[in-house]
Amino acid sequence: MKARREDLKKTGRKGRGSPKLPVITLLTDFGTVDYYVGAVKGAILSVNPLAVIADITHEIPPQDIEAAAFTLLASYQTFPAETIHVAVVDPGVGSARRPIIVRAGKRFFVGPDNGIFTYIYDRAPSHQTFHITAEKYFRDPASSTFHGRDVFAPVAAALSKGTKPQQFGPSINDEVRLGKSLNPVVQKNGKVEGRIIHIDRFGNCVTNITREFLDGKQQATLLIKRIVIRTFRDFYSDGSDNELFAICGSAGFLEISVNGRSAAEVLRVERGDAVTLKMTGLQN
Amino acid sequence: MKARREDLKKTGRKGRGSPKLPVITLLTDFGTVDYYVGAVKGAILSVNPLAVIADITHEIPPQDIEAAAFTLLASYQTFPAETIHVAVVDPGVGSARRPIIVRAGKRFFVGPDNGIFTYIYDRAPSHQTFHITAEKYFRDPASSTFHGRDVFAPVAAALSKGTKPQQFGPSINDEVRLGKSLNPVVQKNGKVEGRIIHIDRFGNCVTNITREFLDGKQQATLLIKRIVIRTFRDFYSDGSDNELFAICGSAGFLEISVNGRSAAEVLRVERGDAVTLKMTGLQN
Amino acid sequence: MKARREDLKKTGRKGRGSPKLPVITLLTDFGTVDYYVGAVKGAILSVNPLAVIADITHEIPPQDIEAAAFTLLASYQTFPAETIHVAVVDPGVGSARRPIIVRAGKRFFVGPDNGIFTYIYDRAPSHQTFHITAEKYFRDPASSTFHGRDVFAPVAAALSKGTKPQQFGPSINDEVRLGKSLNPVVQKNGKVEGRIIHIDRFGNCVTNITREFLDGKQQATLLIKRIVIRTFRDFYSDGSDNELFAICGSAGFLEISVNGRSAAEVLRVERGDAVTLKMTGLQN
Repeated sequence: MKARREDLKKTGRKGRGSPKLPVITLLTDFGTVDYYVGAVKGAILSVNPLAVIADITHEIPPQDIEAAAFTLLASYQTFPAETIHVAVVDPGVGSARRPIIVRAGKRFFVGPDNGIFTYIYDRAPSHQTFHITAEKYFRDPASSTFHGRDVFAPVAAALSKGTKPQQFGPSINDEVRLGKSLNPVVQKNGKVEGRIIHIDRFGNCVTNITREFLDGKQQATLLIKRIVIRTFRDFYSDGSDNELFAICGSAGFLEISVNGRSAAEVLRVERGDAVTLKMTGLQN
Repeated sequence: MKARREDLKKTGRKGRGSPKLPVITLLTDFGTVDYYVGAVKGAILSVNPLAVIADITHEIPPQDIEAAAFTLLASYQTFPAETIHVAVVDPGVGSARRPIIVRAGKRFFVGPDNGIFTYIYDRAPSHQTFHITAEKYFRDPASSTFHGRDVFAPVAAALSKGTKPQQFGPSINDEVRLGKSLNPVVQKNGKVEGRIIHIDRFGNCVTNITREFLDGKQQATLLIKRIVIRTFRDFYSDGSDNELFAICGSAGFLEISVNGRSAAEVLRVERGDAVTLKMTGLQN
Repeated sequence: MKARREDLKKTGRKGRGSPKLPVITLLTDFGTVDYYVGAVKGAILSVNPLAVIADITHEIPPQDIEAAAFTLLASYQTFPAETIHVAVVDPGVGSARRPIIVRAGKRFFVGPDNGIFTYIYDRAPSHQTFHITAEKYFRDPASSTFHGRDVFAPVAAALSKGTKPQQFGPSINDEVRLGKSLNPVVQKNGKVEGRIIHIDRFGNCVTNITREFLDGKQQATLLIKRIVIRTFRDFYSDGSDNELFAICGSAGFLEISVNGRSAAEVLRVERGDAVTLKMTGLQN
C-alpha cells in the first residue's frame, strides 16, 4: 500500500486510508459505433495512464441533456468518493457555452454548462462551479467540434492527477439549469406535485418523488392523467398482468410500472408530465 | 513486484507468482442504454478500487437465463485463474430465489440461483456453492429491485479483496439447474444425442456436441430435423454459398452453419432442438 | 513510482519518465452481443494481468476493413506512446492471410494482413511490419476460427510485457494494402483530388483532404458530384437548415455536412466517391 500510495502521490492524488486508482466515468451521447469514445479514452490515458475509466453509457439519445442529467443522478453515488464524472451531451459545442467543473463534496463533474448537472446542483446545494478557461490543460490543438476529446478528457485527467479545480479557471455561480428543479413541490394540503423525469427502455415511468415522501403514510395514491394508482408494490414480479402499480425503483424514486408492458404506452405519458402523490392518513 | 504484491496483500488477495489485479467480469441483460451497468461498476469500485472490471456482455436477451449460461460457458475459461464472474439475469429479483457464490477450481461465480450457472456445474462437478446470507456485505440500504448493484457487486468486490466464500453464508448442494444438462447422451450404438444450445446473431447453430466426439472418426454425419449434414469444414470461408455444413466453432462445440445465411432460418430450428451425431467408421 | 516502475519492469515494459500500465486497445466487428469480446479480454488478461484494455469499438460493420482502417486512423493518435492497438476485422481468418505486428514510432498494431493498417502505413512510411509465426505465443490450442482470441490477443499481451516484435516472426515489406492511398493527389494546377473515406452514422461525409490543404488559401471550393460547396464552417451548429457546408472535422479531415440531415443522402454519395478541392487565391 505504501508503494501504491507513493505512486498516487507522484500522480498527484493522495491515497486516503486505502489504496486507490483515480476513477473517471464517461457519460455521453456519442454512441459506440464511431471512434469518438475511443478518442476520449486515449486523451485521458495520455494525460494520466493510471486513470481507471468506467463507462456509464454512451447511448444517451442524441442531444438529450435531460436524459443525461437523470442517468448521471441515478449512478454517480455508487462510485467512490473522489470519482471524476465526465458528462458530454453538448449540442452547443464550439459556441459560447462554457466548459465547467463542478465540485460537490468529494466528487467532481466535468462537462458543458448547459444544464446537464442540474440534478447534481439540486442534490448538493453547497457545490462549487468553475469555468474552465486555462487552455494549457486542453489537447493541443483543440478542435471546435470535439470538446469531449480536446477539453473535457484532458481536464478530467489533470484533475485526477491532483490539479485543483480552481487552477482551471474562475469560480462562477450562474450555472445554466434545466427549467425544472429535481425536487417536487409539497402543497399546504400535503399533496406532492411531481413529474415524470425519465422513461426507461421498458416503459417504466420514473417520477421525481422519492421514497421519503411515502414513509409513515397509511395510504397513498398516485394521480397521473386522471388515472388513480392505489397499488404500491415491492417487486416488479409482484404485479399481475396489465395492472398499473407504483414501486420504489432502484434509482430511489417512485416509478409507475405495468407488468410485461410499457407503462408509458399504457398511460400515454411523456417525460415532464405531472404526477401527484396524495396521502390519506398518517401512521403515527 | 514486491510492492505490488504488498498492495494486493493489503487488499486481501495474494499475488501468486506474478503480479495481478483482481479481475471481475460482468454478464447481464441490463443493456447499455440505462444507468444500470454504471451503477454496478460504481458499487464494485466503491468496495475495491483496485478491481479490474471486464464487460463480457450486457446484451443477453431480457431474462434469457439459458443464453447467459451459454455466454458465460463460452468465455470464462479464457480469463485468468481467480477471476470473479458476476452474472445477473434475474427475473426473480426480490423474490425468495437465493443469491449464491460458486467456487469451481480457482474461479468464482456470483449471481442468482436460477440455473444461470448450470453449465459451470456440469463442467466442474466438484464445485462448491454458497448461499449468500451475510447482509453486512450488501450495499446499505439494499433495494429489492436491483441486486446487481446492491448484492452481487459488493459481494464480488469483497471476494476480490480476499473474503472467503464461506464467510458470505452456508454451503448448499441443491442449486437450481436448467432442465437439461450440458452434456449430450451417448447411446449404446454410439450415436450421440445432443441439442442446439445457442443460436448466435449470424444464425449459426451451436450444439452441445464437443470436438472430442469427432476425434478419430472416419466419417460422421449430423442429423437435424430429418436433414443429414455430411460436410465438416475447418473454416467458415470454406463453404460454398447456401451449403449447410458443420464446423468446430470457437466455443469448442460443433456448430451448423450456412455460408452467408442464417442456418437457423434455413433449418427452421430453435434452441433446444435435437441434433444427432452418427459415425460410420473408426480411423484406427 | 519506483515501485510501480519495478512492477512494470517485471512484466517486461519499462516505465519511461512517468508511471504507466500498458494500454491495449480493441477495434473489431465482433458486436457486443456475443461472447467474443469477453473472450478476447480474458485471453489478454491471462497473459498480462496488468494490461489496461480500452475498447475503441466492436461495431465496425461486419467484414468492413475500410471502416476499421478509418476508425483506427481517427483514434490511435490520442492514445499514449507505446499503446498496442489490436484491430480484428478478419474475413480471411483461418486462410493463408498472415497475422502481423506493425511498429510505427513507439506504437504497435496487431491484426490480420488484409489492408486494415493501410492508413497507418500511409501516415508512418518508416514503419516496420513483422509476420507473426512464433506459435509459442498463441493460445493453446489455437482455433482456426477465432484468431482474435487465440492469436492477436495473446500476442498483444506478450508485446505489452516487453517481448520485441522481431521475436514473433520475420520482418516483411509486402503488406497487403487497400486499393487507394490515404493521401489525396495534388494536380499541377493546384487542384486536390480526394475522395470520401468515411460516412458516419449522421451521414457526415469525411474526405481524405486534411486541413493543411486549406491553410493560407483565400477562397476554396469543394466539388462533389457536380455540386459546388463554397461554404466552410467552423462549427456544426453554424449551418442553417438544409445547407451543404464543409467543415474541418475532429478526425483532422475536411467533412461535408448538412445541418439536421444526412449529407450522404442529400448528395447520394458513397464511400470512395471523388471530391475535388479548388482554390481561387493564395493569402500570402
